[in-house]
Amino acid sequence: MNNSVIEYILNRLYDLGISDIFGVAGDYAFPIEDTICNSKHLRWIGNCNELNAAYAADGYARIKGMAALSTTFGVGELSAINAIAGSYAENLPIFHLVGMPASGVQKSKRLVHHTLGNGDFDIFYQLAQRLACAHAILTPENCIAEMERLIATALKERRPVYIGLPSDYAVMPVIENTSVTTPKKPISDKEILEKVASLIIDKLTQSNNICVLPGILSTRLGLSDNVQAFIDKTGLPYATMFMDKSILSESNAQYVGMYDGKLMTPDVREFVENSEYILGIGAMMTDFNTGSFTASIKPTQFISIMSDYVEIDSVVYDDIYMEDVLSALTKQLPYKKYHQIKAKGLSNSVLSDNGEITAQYLYPRLEKFFKPNDIIIAETGTSSMGLGFALLPEDVQFHNQTLWGSIGWATPASFGAALAAPEKRVILITGEGSHQLTVQEISQFVRFGLKPIILVLNNNGYLIERLLCDYPEAYYNDLAQWNYHQLPKAFGAKDWHCAKVTTIDELNKTLEIAESTERASYIEIVTERYEASELAQKLKESKDSLYSF
Amino acid sequence: MNNSVIEYILNRLYDLGISDIFGVAGDYAFPIEDTICNSKHLRWIGNCNELNAAYAADGYARIKGMAALSTTFGVGELSAINAIAGSYAENLPIFHLVGMPASGVQKSKRLVHHTLGNGDFDIFYQLAQRLACAHAILTPENCIAEMERLIATALKERRPVYIGLPSDYAVMPVIENTSVTTPKKPISDKEILEKVASLIIDKLTQSNNICVLPGILSTRLGLSDNVQAFIDKTGLPYATMFMDKSILSESNAQYVGMYDGKLMTPDVREFVENSEYILGIGAMMTDFNTGSFTASIKPTQFISIMSDYVEIDSVVYDDIYMEDVLSALTKQLPYKKYHQIKAKGLSNSVLSDNGEITAQYLYPRLEKFFKPNDIIIAETGTSSMGLGFALLPEDVQFHNQTLWGSIGWATPASFGAALAAPEKRVILITGEGSHQLTVQEISQFVRFGLKPIILVLNNNGYLIERLLCDYPEAYYNDLAQWNYHQLPKAFGAKDWHCAKVTTIDELNKTLEIAESTERASYIEIVTERYEASELAQKLKESKDSLYSF
Repeated sequence: MNNSVIEYILNRLYDLGISDIFGVAGDYAFPIEDTICNSKHLRWIGNCNELNAAYAADGYARIKGMAALSTTFGVGELSAINAIAGSYAENLPIFHLVGMPASGVQKSKRLVHHTLGNGDFDIFYQLAQRLACAHAILTPENCIAEMERLIATALKERRPVYIGLPSDYAVMPVIENTSVTTPKKPISDKEILEKVASLIIDKLTQSNNICVLPGILSTRLGLSDNVQAFIDKTGLPYATMFMDKSILSESNAQYVGMYDGKLMTPDVREFVENSEYILGIGAMMTDFNTGSFTASIKPTQFISIMSDYVEIDSVVYDDIYMEDVLSALTKQLPYKKYHQIKAKGLSNSVLSDNGEITAQYLYPRLEKFFKPNDIIIAETGTSSMGLGFALLPEDVQFHNQTLWGSIGWATPASFGAALAAPEKRVILITGEGSHQLTVQEISQFVRFGLKPIILVLNNNGYLIERLLCDYPEAYYNDLAQWNYHQLPKAFGAKDWHCAKVTTIDELNKTLEIAESTERASYIEIVTERYEASELAQKLKESKDSLYSF
Repeated sequence: MNNSVIEYILNRLYDLGISDIFGVAGDYAFPIEDTICNSKHLRWIGNCNELNAAYAADGYARIKGMAALSTTFGVGELSAINAIAGSYAENLPIFHLVGMPASGVQKSKRLVHHTLGNGDFDIFYQLAQRLACAHAILTPENCIAEMERLIATALKERRPVYIGLPSDYAVMPVIENTSVTTPKKPISDKEILEKVASLIIDKLTQSNNICVLPGILSTRLGLSDNVQAFIDKTGLPYATMFMDKSILSESNAQYVGMYDGKLMTPDVREFVENSEYILGIGAMMTDFNTGSFTASIKPTQFISIMSDYVEIDSVVYDDIYMEDVLSALTKQLPYKKYHQIKAKGLSNSVLSDNGEITAQYLYPRLEKFFKPNDIIIAETGTSSMGLGFALLPEDVQFHNQTLWGSIGWATPASFGAALAAPEKRVILITGEGSHQLTVQEISQFVRFGLKPIILVLNNNGYLIERLLCDYPEAYYNDLAQWNYHQLPKAFGAKDWHCAKVTTIDELNKTLEIAESTERASYIEIVTERYEASELAQKLKESKDSLYSF
């Protein structure tokens, strides 16, 4: 007998390398969950709630390239939707399997639970379509063809895919259809590709002052190695912007540092903006990539290679793909020694007079704490802003949800990342305000025997908001007061290294333990209320350019 | 000078009795948050995350009739959307204020944070419209007129309202427009009303076998007193279904008990289904109201008075409103002694041989624990199913999200309810699986000095799913193992009465403390894995009628 629809779906995902499915169980999704748990090669990752599950899938996809999520109809899928939107914004393919009521229940508009009570069974699917690059309700008849279309679109667009599955269809055998063909990977138009390559090569070979800005989209498209090969072959120097941090090694001699418009690192700014040509490879000029739009790059300077187009001198050339453009440039551009500067990290830690933990001490200290191969998950807010300018050792990954910026993302995302790379050291750094949104997911590290290092910066409120708003002491910036370091034990941890530190001495001692122990660590780092990284302070000064136009 | 747009909005909400605004702060919503915190008569209730904030608003609205919520653009509003859908399904008016980027930022399609990076600033508003009874983006020009329309619709439909507010518009003075008129409350068509009233009266006066089914919609429309007056005046007996439990007093002599189709209380079923006429007043025949559709009521028996129509003998009469229909019936129907049965509660607690806490002991014991005026918030799942058939003392409110059924709702909803009625004893009863989704909100009870009694039933997994699925021991029904009773301390509670009980003796001792202490209580009640209330077991037996059609 043929596979059932859900078996077929899960097999196709497994072919892509997906063996872990995040989610929260729910009755309309029983066939999905049953099939996963009855399979020998699949693993159900039951999260504490659906938002956390989807954030975890997002974190997992940042490491593995894609991920899968399963939720139940209405209540489950809607709880996950903010995280799905984040994966959409930041180009992460998440296959979202939604268990729906049986087709007959839907057709007869029965007044069942998880509906609005109005017989409308289409509304959640309609909402989800807006935040997916492809979507379908699968049936035995359409399953094979639709799965090929959904997968091809996910691989091309690198965004979430929505798969709705009525519970009766899920367990029916798929109907084979010999006419199904796998959509072909799109190929660049040869003439346009040649023209664009020669335009770029003409410019670049004329100049010794060039800076590459490798962008996150190149990594999302699975082209990190191609970008690295391009950099190696050509000798071109590169800077990165915030969202793109660490996508190429920061210990490479061609790396010049972090570029953030007028806000930070003036030497990098000078280097980038004085370059004759700036070559973006999947880089986006967003607010937090451009130092609140203080970056000053002329259209005539900027060459932008994006997923499926290239822009040169404000002219857009369509129908050419990043992989092909990179390949042509790597082949044709000769190696050259370019003018460049040397990347700098944070300065040395500055001791405070009273022994308290200051931003000037903390971030440089953490920079020294990082080791090759670490995965750093940095939450939106002052904590990531402090670490964004650290110079990272070889093969360290720095992940931050820079564009979508949904606070709470980092805690579950670090769980997803740790599950995707159990052999690596995963370090979560989060402000305590953001941590509150999704804190229960630390119990999943315990459950799955993972050993993260969790650093919770407790500065008694939403510090980035205190800096950006008109009334820093307004009580909407205050939080419920928690005993953070007691949480792991309450969440079931038996042997975690948990500590609360308020002085530099305590901080150093506890980081030394975290460095040497085989146990997971959870460290609450208490600072004064306004201890903010330099970037956070600069953002405060430039907030008008962030919020108005 | 005129009020600013946001001052005007908040003043109009205050006129309606809304002084507490739930939410999570975010930068695009600073003008909203600033105005609330700078106001003398408004209170900002900063929740741990947006889903919890919206659930808390839902709980608050169940007590006070309506509530307000504020979130930021994209990330915040999407995180709240599942709870908003729940309020939509269960007829709770929540005014949802969403802080948006400044109009110029939107018009210029800037690549700012909390967007999808594609310049689309309309998408979240478009999504929200599907889950609101009315929606608007407010400007200085339209603010006054639109607020009247939004409020009138909210009062009529009793569903969420979406108010988008670009940050620059928020602080501009409203522009007065003399032509604004408040939409009038709809009035019934007199002829249709007379006809319908006489049709109903003709039927009811002929019979001594009648049962009223007062429904939740009557309470949501603010007509509880009107239904009570109708019951008092006529002497009619009434039963309630699950979603409608406690909307009229269960200690009234006319109350006959809980009706749940073939699943439970056979004497009530016999009484209801053998009645010559069954008069629904805002009652919905959903799956969990009808014992998985095992209720057997003939169309010729059923008279249904809904918000804006009445159905008699399968004929729908529009343009008549519940308030007017009730008023006509109350006026014209004489008092009569009807045939009825006497409502029964749960049987006495049954002691177990080994002293362990069984369902047969637990639920009857909790029934005795309740006191007049308690507010009980019962989570979806086996715990609420156990309590649904308890007979409640005078003026006890029993709240359950029966139709939407989103697990996790009860914990934040109980916080919202406690905030709305700080003078009452609020009792939360939740399974531990549901509790995990939204657990951090217990810290808000601490923060606001509230004294709930929280009962967490720990049966080592999602019990209702074990009962309803094909593989009860499948590991998707398992949970991360927490030390629940340690959570309040980690969440900042200093003097809560926290306990974990595994035996009947311990349970009784700890309930006695909870009853007498002035402190909040958090009690983890451990039972065997399959200790389920009778309804939950019956649902298992009838699951085919729940899931297929």
